[in-house]
Amino acid sequence: MEQSKSAIIVGAGLVGSLWAVYLSKAGYKVTIYERRPDIRKAEISAGKSINLALSKRGWTALDAVGVGDEIRKIAIPMYGRIMHDLEGNLTHQPYGKEGEAIYSVSRGGVNARMMDIAEEYGNAEIHYNIECTGADTKAGVVHLKNKTTGEAFSAEADVIFAADGAFSAVRYNAFQKIDRFNFSQHYIADGYREILLPANEDGSYPLDKNALHIWPRGRFMLIALANEDGSFTCTLFMPYDGDENSFNQLKSKEAVDRFFKTTFPDFYDMMPNIADAWEDHPLSSLAIMRSYPWHDGKVALMGDAAHATVPFYGQGMNGGFEDCTVLAELMRKHNENWDAVFEEYSEVRKPDGDALQDLSLHNYYVMRDYVADPKFLLQKKIEAKFSELYPDKWLPLYSQVTFSNIRYSEALQSGKRQDDIMKQVMDRPDIESNWDSDEVMQRILEKIEA
Amino acid sequence: MEQSKSAIIVGAGLVGSLWAVYLSKAGYKVTIYERRPDIRKAEISAGKSINLALSKRGWTALDAVGVGDEIRKIAIPMYGRIMHDLEGNLTHQPYGKEGEAIYSVSRGGVNARMMDIAEEYGNAEIHYNIECTGADTKAGVVHLKNKTTGEAFSAEADVIFAADGAFSAVRYNAFQKIDRFNFSQHYIADGYREILLPANEDGSYPLDKNALHIWPRGRFMLIALANEDGSFTCTLFMPYDGDENSFNQLKSKEAVDRFFKTTFPDFYDMMPNIADAWEDHPLSSLAIMRSYPWHDGKVALMGDAAHATVPFYGQGMNGGFEDCTVLAELMRKHNENWDAVFEEYSEVRKPDGDALQDLSLHNYYVMRDYVADPKFLLQKKIEAKFSELYPDKWLPLYSQVTFSNIRYSEALQSGKRQDDIMKQVMDRPDIESNWDSDEVMQRILEKIEA
Repeated sequence: MEQSKSAIIVGAGLVGSLWAVYLSKAGYKVTIYERRPDIRKAEISAGKSINLALSKRGWTALDAVGVGDEIRKIAIPMYGRIMHDLEGNLTHQPYGKEGEAIYSVSRGGVNARMMDIAEEYGNAEIHYNIECTGADTKAGVVHLKNKTTGEAFSAEADVIFAADGAFSAVRYNAFQKIDRFNFSQHYIADGYREILLPANEDGSYPLDKNALHIWPRGRFMLIALANEDGSFTCTLFMPYDGDENSFNQLKSKEAVDRFFKTTFPDFYDMMPNIADAWEDHPLSSLAIMRSYPWHDGKVALMGDAAHATVPFYGQGMNGGFEDCTVLAELMRKHNENWDAVFEEYSEVRKPDGDALQDLSLHNYYVMRDYVADPKFLLQKKIEAKFSELYPDKWLPLYSQVTFSNIRYSEALQSGKRQDDIMKQVMDRPDIESNWDSDEVMQRILEKIEA
Repeated sequence: MEQSKSAIIVGAGLVGSLWAVYLSKAGYKVTIYERRPDIRKAEISAGKSINLALSKRGWTALDAVGVGDEIRKIAIPMYGRIMHDLEGNLTHQPYGKEGEAIYSVSRGGVNARMMDIAEEYGNAEIHYNIECTGADTKAGVVHLKNKTTGEAFSAEADVIFAADGAFSAVRYNAFQKIDRFNFSQHYIADGYREILLPANEDGSYPLDKNALHIWPRGRFMLIALANEDGSFTCTLFMPYDGDENSFNQLKSKEAVDRFFKTTFPDFYDMMPNIADAWEDHPLSSLAIMRSYPWHDGKVALMGDAAHATVPFYGQGMNGGFEDCTVLAELMRKHNENWDAVFEEYSEVRKPDGDALQDLSLHNYYVMRDYVADPKFLLQKKIEAKFSELYPDKWLPLYSQVTFSNIRYSEALQSGKRQDDIMKQVMDRPDIESNWDSDEVMQRILEKIEA
């Protein structure tokens, strides 16, 4: 394989590591510059590590270059949600059809494995402790600084990819200074704090490991995703401010203890020392970051650097991996004419980034509130039944996002249409007794075909 | 006057210079750091110099500290709009009531005068060629660099104000790195290019100097505001891209000549050498920049640094000056407890910044399109008549924004309500013949009192 073609990737995170494999397979010599030390050798930094949920788009992008099975080894399937109410009663809701699941992976674990993959499958040279201080996008040059030695230097390649995350240095130091570059960072009113629910003493799981657990409480929620070692990574999402049920009301051990005891009693029973563990992880913020265009000159933004989102649909990583799928298709289509590739990438993929973000925000309401509502669960059951009868006519929104490769923008549109129809259906006074009747199914069919 | 209290202002532009006077009068020793050289000595940089229109809010802020008359000396009143159609026919539309005007000032002229004022009335020490490279907002420290010598240094004060414009270095280097700081920069699809229409050979004005001239052409427009020397500063606003009537279609002298000859024939008659002058000023972009909060620690953002807007309502400078009015009120209210001042400033003033931006965007449609529509002009006449009859019940939106100190957010709200009412009134089939009838006035009265 000739290696006269060169590419630089800024960021050895999930998307950068995967994209290295794609580029390598296309004949590029790939060099990655990563701001942090090698997380496989250093201790993984605590805090920002909500567990990730791999779904269809992610697998599609991984399997296209033959690395999916490497990740399957560390992934735990979750077939549905289990909701925990105030009395500790559980409600199950399947995510999709029989056998369909999303897959819990720990951020640290999957990131380390992806770096292995970048090196082994992508032949990428990863340089650590190198931060990006700027770029000459037109010339295809990144300006870098060795954080260990302080040395400043530059690197050049035929094409450069910024996969350096929500706080992308390339975007901040280069793109944001480009005339007519649109950008926004919008923090939501809520933050999150991670809690590690340990394995039982015998190493077994304290909760069903094959489900995503939610304690939906209207304006806030607690969730739990299984780790490989029997523990669960739990996350409390809640407003920063406010007179009740906000992080600023949980400033003492007593307040934390009381809050968990009354709000999440079954969780409290499993982890009565929650108040002691409260400070193990920092309170962190959540933001949506939008930008446009996603390229300039020889540089393109990918993943969170282009479209960072809130985590509520579990699509941040999947959407980033799908950027690889999209770029790879365009690479082939335009025969590696990168000007044409980037032009179409920005234009075609941007609406999907926006939709992914809109969907993510919306799913916060679903998770923290609607899933506790029997009417919502009934609606989902009706949709599932109709979808089973007429699979070509109705794929529930959650399935479109999670179990298909349908464009996010199309999923968002068709989800709105489905919602309009279901609003009418749910308004029938007899819906609770007749929800699975032929007549109800017929009405939906008429509406969807109207 | 004791001077134990100190303040730093970053930016010796319009807002920074005026705010220096306010602070000085409150007993602060004021130091200003300005990135550019002293524009009063250097040549004024070309390009970004759409003429500014001073109106009520601006005068209020200037007069409150006794410096309005300094600016009146260089201001030219404009009592209304004059629209130029494709045949060169003129239509007049007064801005407000008899005698009400907005005042054209050149950006360079007013900026130089404001610097004089900062020094003379504000006793401010202005340091030029100093750029801000960062800030420790909690400590009240700005990090600076002398652009001439390269020397880096820091400065500290009790309180710091960033009045350093749309591309604020304080916002970029400090605020944007603060967790949970919201920010967006959104460029509109249109750019602008300035054109200087010279005075007649005898020094007289080629157009009525006491009006704002508009050539409204639907998707784009040309405007002209008088200068003191008989010339007019003209600005063409138009999309960057597109197959017709876009800047990218005007890349040759021939194209420019043809475009002006056919699109602005009466302007072309005055300036047949337009194609030669076309490149005298650069094509520039237009953006809305939003941020929140407007303060952190001991630092507050003011003017364009907090709420840069597009220029179509002539309210950028006026809104920035009004920030001084608001901050001065809060300073008194909270007895210079700056934590309290800044807290309330961010919370109370932000909706007005947003409204100012929304109003500015909306007025582009008004100027480039609606003012060419006889129905729109009739609607404005009806509103003016009703407002004259019932001045307590109806102040037209334009007057609220331009000739009052009503909060922008309230003006925007009441403007929407007025629009709803006028939509119904304009739908009457007899409106053109009966527009000033008692009955129409009575109907409006009923609706506004409903």
